[in-house]
Amino acid sequence: MVDMKAILSLDIGGTNIRAGLFSEDSIEPFYIKKIRTSGQNRTPLENIIHLIAEIKHEHPQIDAISMAVPGSIDNKHGVIIKAPNVGGWKNIPLRDIISEKFGIVPSIENDASMAAYGEWKHGAGRGHNYLLYMTISTGVGGAVIDDGHLLTGFRGLGTEKGHMTIVENGPLCSCGQPGHLEALASGTGIAAYFQRKMAEGVPTSLAADPAPTAESIAAAARQGDALSIDAFRQAGYYLGIGLASYLHIFNPSCIILGGGVSSSGELFYDPFYASLKQHVMSEEYLVGLEIEYAQLGDDAGLIGAYQWSVDHL
Amino acid sequence: MVDMKAILSLDIGGTNIRAGLFSEDSIEPFYIKKIRTSGQNRTPLENIIHLIAEIKHEHPQIDAISMAVPGSIDNKHGVIIKAPNVGGWKNIPLRDIISEKFGIVPSIENDASMAAYGEWKHGAGRGHNYLLYMTISTGVGGAVIDDGHLLTGFRGLGTEKGHMTIVENGPLCSCGQPGHLEALASGTGIAAYFQRKMAEGVPTSLAADPAPTAESIAAAARQGDALSIDAFRQAGYYLGIGLASYLHIFNPSCIILGGGVSSSGELFYDPFYASLKQHVMSEEYLVGLEIEYAQLGDDAGLIGAYQWSVDHL
Repeated sequence: MVDMKAILSLDIGGTNIRAGLFSEDSIEPFYIKKIRTSGQNRTPLENIIHLIAEIKHEHPQIDAISMAVPGSIDNKHGVIIKAPNVGGWKNIPLRDIISEKFGIVPSIENDASMAAYGEWKHGAGRGHNYLLYMTISTGVGGAVIDDGHLLTGFRGLGTEKGHMTIVENGPLCSCGQPGHLEALASGTGIAAYFQRKMAEGVPTSLAADPAPTAESIAAAARQGDALSIDAFRQAGYYLGIGLASYLHIFNPSCIILGGGVSSSGELFYDPFYASLKQHVMSEEYLVGLEIEYAQLGDDAGLIGAYQWSVDHL
Repeated sequence: MVDMKAILSLDIGGTNIRAGLFSEDSIEPFYIKKIRTSGQNRTPLENIIHLIAEIKHEHPQIDAISMAVPGSIDNKHGVIIKAPNVGGWKNIPLRDIISEKFGIVPSIENDASMAAYGEWKHGAGRGHNYLLYMTISTGVGGAVIDDGHLLTGFRGLGTEKGHMTIVENGPLCSCGQPGHLEALASGTGIAAYFQRKMAEGVPTSLAADPAPTAESIAAAARQGDALSIDAFRQAGYYLGIGLASYLHIFNPSCIILGGGVSSSGELFYDPFYASLKQHVMSEEYLVGLEIEYAQLGDDAGLIGAYQWSVDHL
């Protein structure tokens, strides 16, 4: 009998923690479990430990643990420097905590990096070695693969692809800085722009209360609401400016667009692509460039963290 | 006797072509020659061929040729897509031309990439594996090394670190796009800002004719000319915005500043560093970060191209 290794992959989100137990030869987990990150009156950390213990009880043979976490991860030391969406985590030595509890030193990486890795190996990026993955939802994140190498930076903090200034003194970003790509092209940015225009008296079919969100604005846009269409047009325009810069900086052969805002279709894509073409400094950057929607959906981080672990075992 | 390989390194600039013949065990060339790029009534290409032939005549044993070229280089095929400063080169299959003439397939890379490689291996970047090199002179160029990997992109075009939008609808860049880092922080950008302010009537000790350059503005700034000081302050401020974004995107452990504008000292450095600190989204990006001036001067490209060839022979 072959000694097949079992890998526990965890995708830790602000709302849910998803766990998948994989055999090293298949991207189909043989066991999957989803719990609320802050459910059962437990902290996120207690929930993670409880979940791993539960899975280990049912499946004693776990050879590796791989985690995708949304935030700033010092991946050399496995410390969560900041993960505002996961119970306000700050300086959590997650690697040490898990390895003391379970005797396995886990791999801990940024979730957008792991999603990019998953899409590269098993999704929309297959066959490419130069990849820009962008996820556009509440925030804007991303990751880059150059010649098969996933960029993370010195302390693992080089993953903040949404935090690039593109409008001097522009709208404030979630991080507190003005004019970042995230403040202009994310779901939050779309809602903020819409609400600002609404307050200025621009007519719309949407009510002011409850405050319109990127989802309700997308729905109204599909019904022909001009301000809603304009809000997505703006966001796509700024994403085009930002990704033109990323083409100059990275020259990928493939851009993968993931996240809820990307999935709103041509409403967002058409102004994005027109702006990308307008702002690219040379047509050469579009030669051989494929632009794809992400294919793995909510599983990207889970599959990516699993594959990352297999490739680095 | 050891069979030591001889490497011919060429740094091709808009003004000069520098050639160095290196033994693979030393960064001191045993033969060096500098000619004018467009001198002797020859085209740049004719001069390159003539120079190589001349060196090969004196030193028949050349095992590798490595070239650093300022422009967009398809490094997979050795084609110069665009090098405006080298006789307006466009789509020059330089690798094929050289290998047909001399029977050696040369390595051809972007000059900023090779300078970064040189500084990394033998200059200000020694001991770092995560490096951002920026050269600020007439234009703004740069290169990134992540975990010992030099980023180049799919077709070798991912080296345009000066062509990132940081001011929407800002001043026009040499590439034709508005608001790029290069348009705001380069020597050209400094001169353009100065001349604009002068035309608006801001007093200065400098005369309007001949048109002030970054050099004359730097000299006037050192004499206390307020507008000149302001022009460098502006450029440093924008470099700080741009490099804050690059810290978020790349998280290097070392920034190396090269080029003439960088060497103007605190005039430029102080406003740059204040702006970098102001615009970085978290102090974490400054932890362990070293900011250094380039050490290899004009030799960076030559030494980098030599070392690149040794490491990829």
